[in-house]
Amino acid sequence: MIVRPGLHWLRMVFVWRGSVLRDIAPQLLLVTGFSILVTAFHGYLFAWKVPLNFVPFSLIGLTLAIFLGFRNNTSYARYWEARMLWGTVLNESRNLLRMGLTLVEPPAKSQLLAARLIAFVHALRHQLRHTDPSADFARVLSPEDQVRLQPALFKPAMLLLMASEWARDHRQAGQAMEMPLGRLTEALGGCERIAGTPIPFTYVVIIHRTIFLYCVLLPFGLIDSIGPMTPVIVVFLGYTFFALEALGQEIEEPFGTAQNDLALDEMSRTIESTLREMLGEPQQPIVMDPEVFNHT
Amino acid sequence: MIVRPGLHWLRMVFVWRGSVLRDIAPQLLLVTGFSILVTAFHGYLFAWKVPLNFVPFSLIGLTLAIFLGFRNNTSYARYWEARMLWGTVLNESRNLLRMGLTLVEPPAKSQLLAARLIAFVHALRHQLRHTDPSADFARVLSPEDQVRLQPALFKPAMLLLMASEWARDHRQAGQAMEMPLGRLTEALGGCERIAGTPIPFTYVVIIHRTIFLYCVLLPFGLIDSIGPMTPVIVVFLGYTFFALEALGQEIEEPFGTAQNDLALDEMSRTIESTLREMLGEPQQPIVMDPEVFNHT
Amino acid sequence: MIVRPGLHWLRMVFVWRGSVLRDIAPQLLLVTGFSILVTAFHGYLFAWKVPLNFVPFSLIGLTLAIFLGFRNNTSYARYWEARMLWGTVLNESRNLLRMGLTLVEPPAKSQLLAARLIAFVHALRHQLRHTDPSADFARVLSPEDQVRLQPALFKPAMLLLMASEWARDHRQAGQAMEMPLGRLTEALGGCERIAGTPIPFTYVVIIHRTIFLYCVLLPFGLIDSIGPMTPVIVVFLGYTFFALEALGQEIEEPFGTAQNDLALDEMSRTIESTLREMLGEPQQPIVMDPEVFNHT
Amino acid sequence: MIVRPGLHWLRMVFVWRGSVLRDIAPQLLLVTGFSILVTAFHGYLFAWKVPLNFVPFSLIGLTLAIFLGFRNNTSYARYWEARMLWGTVLNESRNLLRMGLTLVEPPAKSQLLAARLIAFVHALRHQLRHTDPSADFARVLSPEDQVRLQPALFKPAMLLLMASEWARDHRQAGQAMEMPLGRLTEALGGCERIAGTPIPFTYVVIIHRTIFLYCVLLPFGLIDSIGPMTPVIVVFLGYTFFALEALGQEIEEPFGTAQNDLALDEMSRTIESTLREMLGEPQQPIVMDPEVFNHT
Amino acid sequence: MIVRPGLHWLRMVFVWRGSVLRDIAPQLLLVTGFSILVTAFHGYLFAWKVPLNFVPFSLIGLTLAIFLGFRNNTSYARYWEARMLWGTVLNESRNLLRMGLTLVEPPAKSQLLAARLIAFVHALRHQLRHTDPSADFARVLSPEDQVRLQPALFKPAMLLLMASEWARDHRQAGQAMEMPLGRLTEALGGCERIAGTPIPFTYVVIIHRTIFLYCVLLPFGLIDSIGPMTPVIVVFLGYTFFALEALGQEIEEPFGTAQNDLALDEMSRTIESTLREMLGEPQQPIVMDPEVFNHT
Repeated sequence: MIVRPGLHWLRMVFVWRGSVLRDIAPQLLLVTGFSILVTAFHGYLFAWKVPLNFVPFSLIGLTLAIFLGFRNNTSYARYWEARMLWGTVLNESRNLLRMGLTLVEPPAKSQLLAARLIAFVHALRHQLRHTDPSADFARVLSPEDQVRLQPALFKPAMLLLMASEWARDHRQAGQAMEMPLGRLTEALGGCERIAGTPIPFTYVVIIHRTIFLYCVLLPFGLIDSIGPMTPVIVVFLGYTFFALEALGQEIEEPFGTAQNDLALDEMSRTIESTLREMLGEPQQPIVMDPEVFNHT
Repeated sequence: MIVRPGLHWLRMVFVWRGSVLRDIAPQLLLVTGFSILVTAFHGYLFAWKVPLNFVPFSLIGLTLAIFLGFRNNTSYARYWEARMLWGTVLNESRNLLRMGLTLVEPPAKSQLLAARLIAFVHALRHQLRHTDPSADFARVLSPEDQVRLQPALFKPAMLLLMASEWARDHRQAGQAMEMPLGRLTEALGGCERIAGTPIPFTYVVIIHRTIFLYCVLLPFGLIDSIGPMTPVIVVFLGYTFFALEALGQEIEEPFGTAQNDLALDEMSRTIESTLREMLGEPQQPIVMDPEVFNHT
Repeated sequence: MIVRPGLHWLRMVFVWRGSVLRDIAPQLLLVTGFSILVTAFHGYLFAWKVPLNFVPFSLIGLTLAIFLGFRNNTSYARYWEARMLWGTVLNESRNLLRMGLTLVEPPAKSQLLAARLIAFVHALRHQLRHTDPSADFARVLSPEDQVRLQPALFKPAMLLLMASEWARDHRQAGQAMEMPLGRLTEALGGCERIAGTPIPFTYVVIIHRTIFLYCVLLPFGLIDSIGPMTPVIVVFLGYTFFALEALGQEIEEPFGTAQNDLALDEMSRTIESTLREMLGEPQQPIVMDPEVFNHT
Repeated sequence: MIVRPGLHWLRMVFVWRGSVLRDIAPQLLLVTGFSILVTAFHGYLFAWKVPLNFVPFSLIGLTLAIFLGFRNNTSYARYWEARMLWGTVLNESRNLLRMGLTLVEPPAKSQLLAARLIAFVHALRHQLRHTDPSADFARVLSPEDQVRLQPALFKPAMLLLMASEWARDHRQAGQAMEMPLGRLTEALGGCERIAGTPIPFTYVVIIHRTIFLYCVLLPFGLIDSIGPMTPVIVVFLGYTFFALEALGQEIEEPFGTAQNDLALDEMSRTIESTLREMLGEPQQPIVMDPEVFNHT
Repeated sequence: MIVRPGLHWLRMVFVWRGSVLRDIAPQLLLVTGFSILVTAFHGYLFAWKVPLNFVPFSLIGLTLAIFLGFRNNTSYARYWEARMLWGTVLNESRNLLRMGLTLVEPPAKSQLLAARLIAFVHALRHQLRHTDPSADFARVLSPEDQVRLQPALFKPAMLLLMASEWARDHRQAGQAMEMPLGRLTEALGGCERIAGTPIPFTYVVIIHRTIFLYCVLLPFGLIDSIGPMTPVIVVFLGYTFFALEALGQEIEEPFGTAQNDLALDEMSRTIESTLREMLGEPQQPIVMDPEVFNHT
């Protein structure tokens, strides 16, 4: 996730970091080269003048708008839902620990609960990013808990079961803790859903093809009316199309480490910090290097 | 459901598997043939030059955009809601079993609960796909439970009642299990709703007619300005229209086994696996054949 | 509600049943006749050539798109929300009966609860359709319950109160039944809301006027460029506009018996059937006449 | 709120009541007059022919569509959310009284609860419309309750506190009543939110300016191509723009008494009637004067 | 937040306060100057006539509409969600205090609860605006509570824990207070989410670039058809684009003190006032200076 709030409007026109130019460069270069060729040959393809004007492109624009708008909205909805699910992880961890601290005597007993919740957060991040959670487990969990988690396929689900067992062992808490435990289960399932169910593949194919064909045909449609400006416009349009597609692809699966993905590392650290503070451990604010815009 | 994350952008232009070309081939061929005929006769219909230009098509585009956008968004909303309902099935099964394991002593008693929940998941899938659940029932349920389910019309609802009876027989659990049982009932009803209530038929008819008439008239409107390129553009436009319609039709009822439908088989297996792991049975990761993209 | 899943794409172009042609025939004929007249007189109105081209129509298209898109989305949202509310009626009836059967001993006592719930479902349907519920009440309720309901203005609300009294008389159930009773109350109130609050009348007026004026002026704008094809295009456009409007009007109040309205009859029967099955009464599958597509 | 369901499509073209023509007349007349002047002078402004054609307007249409669509959707969303909040008021009042009647013995004790709930509904309406609730309070509340409410700034919130005190005084009810009380608090806060937070003022300004400038420049852009039809088209377009804006303004704050606002009077009466019927007081159906379409 | 309900439609065309003209002045001046230069040189760039017409701009309009519509809707959704979260803060504070007053004897004990809730509201506002909460804490909290909050990084979360401890110390309340406490935790987490997760930076860059390039190229595309009117139209279009972008930027992070941001000061005061009134302290209505439109 890139955070650069104070950027001047003029500098934003020329910023390189944070744009998707790198990702779409090959496609854009291909389209640019082709449009320059078409312009150089005045729209002739082997001595045959390709008879096209702007009309077909304004008609095709109709479905293209539907496709791109759909792709864009769907991808962003997935991104934002993923962010909300991580918000739920924060909220319900706080709720559970708050209940532990106020419903179970003495409060110190809640340290085990907090450890399992913190381990859950890290386990969820590692599962979504296919990385190894052992180091984080070693840092926060007891050896027995680590051993129990070792063979588990669904580690975060197992940790919720273990948090639930803590509640069982401290029956004073009553059943109030079932609701936040249920919500954490939902957040876990929601993240697994987004990670495991991509946007239907056929959409991706149709959109990609339509954009590509559009950009290849476009120079023939413009050459007669705007002549040497044809490549400029084709590149401009191609840039917006490809960028929209690339951006959609990036945020559609928002748990990765690409520049527009969610800052799971930072969020995990924040949750751990706020839970530890509730236990009474003093916390230091997380200081960011102002030159590093890309939070992972 | 097709999962092909690492596909190169150039290969995606020419991919055959996962596109809907096969489904829309007849309509596309008809429209192509007709537009070639119109081009060959220079827009004449029995010696009468059909006087059309691009204007009517840009006006008709207005309602077409509304229709297609509506169809597309509605179909995808149904698809995604169905996916969320299956997510609820996963979450609340986990919640119920977690409660069983922590609220009822000894935990071994929860095996019967887990069996009924696993049977519920398979029963739901079989009901939605109109297939026979007997084999799955025989694998997880006791003979008495199988006998009781035999005559039932609404098998998943009956299994929820039986899970509820388990809770009644183990009163230690209190009433906390009512909430996840209620949520499973909602997920069941939601799936039945999507399966039983199609998009209003009149929409389907109007959209189909508008697209068809548009594609049949279009060659007459293009022939005078782009001549021999007419069939190319008609096919291009027809492809996006028909593909959008076919895709909508496919994901609107997402419980089937078409290539963009939900992978109910895989999800059922995953739910069974995570529940069994909670019971303490070690699980193997599900290995996919990398050449098979179509998950059912 | 029309259900015709297997319709061939070619037959769908010519289907009569399920289209709204009948409803919009008068307006469409008027517009057709007028456009033929305009074409016959070459756009002259009493010797004055009306100077119009396509430009104004493409500008007007802007607001028309907003209006029609809004009308369409809002109407469908009402339709789908109504369907979801009836889904809630199904889910929460099942939940209540499940609770009755598992929380109250002996299960046979729940027959009275089931009777009141079934009566509630039918009462809701009759209230929404302004029909007489007496026959259904006589079939499922005791004479005393019927007498009590006789003078009630808000019969479904009264039946929920009576279901609540059943819960009071069987206190073993605790307060778990309050939640599904509350949800049924919400579903009832939601249906009353949709039935009682139409889309703001001014929208309906503005949209109707804009469409009408557009269709009346359009022939003058097309006659110079497409000549004798003018009526064809005007009818085509008029068809999509009027159909969109008529369809919106139909599904906006989805509790009627028009061809795209919800199949309340069928849903009531299904709910009654699933509740009876839970009580242990064997049920027969509902067989549909394959020639009857219109489910009410 | 205007309710005229059976209006014939032809009469709807000419209906005066329910349209917003009155509200937008001044602006529409100004724009009409100006466009007639421009037409009379053939687009000359003090001997200078203003060089405009339709192109700029089709480009400006882009942002105008975004603005108007946004304004329209946002206003309607506020209207519909307000309606849903009042639906919640109905539902949760019923729920609370149902609980009172079934959880507290004898049922007659619930009359005090019902009185406070009915007073809450009227107090909410009066607060939203800035009218005096004393008459309604005198009709339903005891003198002591009236005295207590007299100095309160937040009268509906105070009435919910008093309903809560009733629950405290009848502890048999347990804590089940906390949930509907919480929902009523949310409905109250939601109404206050809509009433107190308008659509950001800058939107209103930008949209208003864009529409106005568009309508003033438009005659110059049309005069060369459609000549004397210019004022007709300008008025037509201006009507749709201004009507969309005026309608948005009206329903954005839906608690007033304008013709498209919510029928709070009628809803309050309905809620009072259904609550009284639950108490056992026979109710008369509310008869509407068929000539009065405007329900407040 | 600007509140100016009764503004006349004519005055709204010329209003300065509340428009974003100040923020976008530099960009608008640059674009204006450039378009005047292009007009003065008749579209020549160093003796080369730039061959452009309106066609490319109508094609680019396609993606521009998607981008701007997306930006606008997303920003407003964030604004409105933030407003709803503050609505939740109001509602659940009322709920908690209502529970305290009715479930705990004597009601006077609830003063400590109210103090911590009021401090929570102010702490949330100060955290979101990065201001110092000490003055507000000194006004409402006991010295011990202030000392405990001093070192906390997450002050609002700590205050919710302290409110929870109050509930623990007054066990008569049972666990009913867990639900509103959980909702306040969610509102807190939601505000932190909106404040900490901007719209993906790449969107902001692409939209900004597309607008800028569009405005720079536009004069070349218009000069041949509308000549000296070119700068007028460019400024008009640039105004709507830049204003849309600036407005999006302003309300996307709605917790600041810009003119369209949420009136957190006023809302905090209102919440404090309604809570104090529930405690029995008489409240004065908040009087606004009618000349000050900008509520913070």
